[in-house]
Amino acid sequence: MNIEDIETPAVLVDCRIAEANLARAQAYADRHGLPLRPHIKTHKLPRFALRQVELGAIGITCQKIGEAEVMADAGLSDIFIPYNILGARKLARLAELHRRVTLSVTADSAETVAGYADAFRDADHPLAVLVECDTGARRCGVASPEEALQLARRIDAAPGLSFQGLMTYPPRNGAEQVNDWLARAKNLLLSEGLPPVRISSGGSPDLYSAAEVGVATEHRPGTYIYSDRMQVSFGLGTLDDCALTVVTTVVSHPTSDRVVLDAGSKALAADTCAEPGHGYITAYPEAVITGLSEEHAIVDVSRCARTPRIGEKVRVVPNHACVVSNLFDTVHLTADGETAEAVPVAARGRLQ
Amino acid sequence: MNIEDIETPAVLVDCRIAEANLARAQAYADRHGLPLRPHIKTHKLPRFALRQVELGAIGITCQKIGEAEVMADAGLSDIFIPYNILGARKLARLAELHRRVTLSVTADSAETVAGYADAFRDADHPLAVLVECDTGARRCGVASPEEALQLARRIDAAPGLSFQGLMTYPPRNGAEQVNDWLARAKNLLLSEGLPPVRISSGGSPDLYSAAEVGVATEHRPGTYIYSDRMQVSFGLGTLDDCALTVVTTVVSHPTSDRVVLDAGSKALAADTCAEPGHGYITAYPEAVITGLSEEHAIVDVSRCARTPRIGEKVRVVPNHACVVSNLFDTVHLTADGETAEAVPVAARGRLQ
Repeated sequence: MNIEDIETPAVLVDCRIAEANLARAQAYADRHGLPLRPHIKTHKLPRFALRQVELGAIGITCQKIGEAEVMADAGLSDIFIPYNILGARKLARLAELHRRVTLSVTADSAETVAGYADAFRDADHPLAVLVECDTGARRCGVASPEEALQLARRIDAAPGLSFQGLMTYPPRNGAEQVNDWLARAKNLLLSEGLPPVRISSGGSPDLYSAAEVGVATEHRPGTYIYSDRMQVSFGLGTLDDCALTVVTTVVSHPTSDRVVLDAGSKALAADTCAEPGHGYITAYPEAVITGLSEEHAIVDVSRCARTPRIGEKVRVVPNHACVVSNLFDTVHLTADGETAEAVPVAARGRLQ
Repeated sequence: MNIEDIETPAVLVDCRIAEANLARAQAYADRHGLPLRPHIKTHKLPRFALRQVELGAIGITCQKIGEAEVMADAGLSDIFIPYNILGARKLARLAELHRRVTLSVTADSAETVAGYADAFRDADHPLAVLVECDTGARRCGVASPEEALQLARRIDAAPGLSFQGLMTYPPRNGAEQVNDWLARAKNLLLSEGLPPVRISSGGSPDLYSAAEVGVATEHRPGTYIYSDRMQVSFGLGTLDDCALTVVTTVVSHPTSDRVVLDAGSKALAADTCAEPGHGYITAYPEAVITGLSEEHAIVDVSRCARTPRIGEKVRVVPNHACVVSNLFDTVHLTADGETAEAVPVAARGRLQ
């Protein structure tokens, strides 16, 4: 369809920008000999996952089993789920997935390892488990290399499991600290006869300094394919590198300094970033989205030389592209900036 | 299914609490002779919309045509869409809907009225249009009673439209100001021969002072059915009146003061409220959800006398229930606190 005919609010992805973002990252990875294992959470689309692999990615990363199931159905064959997977139903689904693809997961506790060990006791081939390490981001992860060793021993001791290595979600601008942590853990594991053959770090903000974590054997960027206002504020490229925009219509212009768009938190999400407001309106750079209700964005246009008219469509670079992908059943892909193809977001809403 | 068997994260709605919330509000409305026209954005479920009407609501409110279409399919016959609806495709869908149900909409600009007038020029019966008024919330709406009169005249002059009255989304704790505004507008319209037969106000925070807006002929509460942490912070009931909780599993306990849940911003949404953190964990009142990534909630348990174990399921009252409903394809309804029925959220994700 013609882009002008898209009903708003809608997600528009410029595939030329996305492709350039993928190619740039893969070129960096190739130059530094650091394999990529992209996180599909940003696009949730099999076609982009397949394209990432085609360009050179060694596999993909999913956060939920439901996402991995969608990607396996689409032919992705090497899937990493860096998550503590707990509960009988989820473990049964994990075992099923393990029969279909090259699968790896993480654990940061004895409880998680015990669950895996029980579910994979009689597996044909062992489940690859990496130990999640807290290298400073204070999310999940064991707190020290010594704890990593303890957990690696537990994994190694379980018949259905194989200890494969270490995984971390690093703090921003923390390459040196992350490398030190992981190198200490690696040396400790080596000295104990448990070599970590995979050491996985991640994140888009530090994608172009990922090679500084020299001990890592792979990097898991996610948002880099679309980028967004948050990534730009972190220093990843410019607003022109943002492939995903929300197309929205001006539905009200109640006062000279205020317009209202038909994209609220149901379309843009409420995530904030270092820049003011809830998104960047490409045609009106001075406009500030000061507030969101569920179906409306309130925009301060007092600093704009001209203001949009009621009925006009504008595009918004969201603060956080991944959560926007998760809010739309369908996204519109454009390769020429004029026509678009509507594509279902196959792995949207896979919460379990 | 048994509640214990629900895979997490999941939404659980306690129908006993929801029913009590509905009954309490309807009793208030009946006592004050103020009809309710509930907003379905909170639950997005036909069954609750039908129940609201069964209890006495005069119709329902939807924010998007897509939501109204779902509700019309389910047998709801009187639907108000308080939105400036613009664009040829949406207006064609609106005309189609108009043939099926008693429909009313709003406008706050000549442009919106012109669109309705054009689309309904040859309608069998006129489309009821209310003028949206900004009584202080600074969202959409005409800025003065005089502007309301001007717009009412435009509506009245269009062959396919009928001017029906006034609509506002009020500022919080603004009953007196809202009533003054609307009463002035009403008198002006009466004096000009354009009686506003409907005057519609809304919102759950001020639901139990809605009757103080004496000039209103109906009230549109939404969140009251489920309530949430934000409503409680606004003074609507207590946390025990919150019918919707997110069931989530503790997946990590990396340090003594930190646990991690498998519900991130994809499950709880990033909306903030006056209370600290991203939700209230019912079994651990002293715990604070200090951060959300997409699939994890980081919880500070340093003030808890006991801490949850890995694998334990806990329930979280979210900050904002409506946006949580929109994140899940399915919700689980319980009538006895032990077993639950999985129900598709029929009007979820209807952005257009």
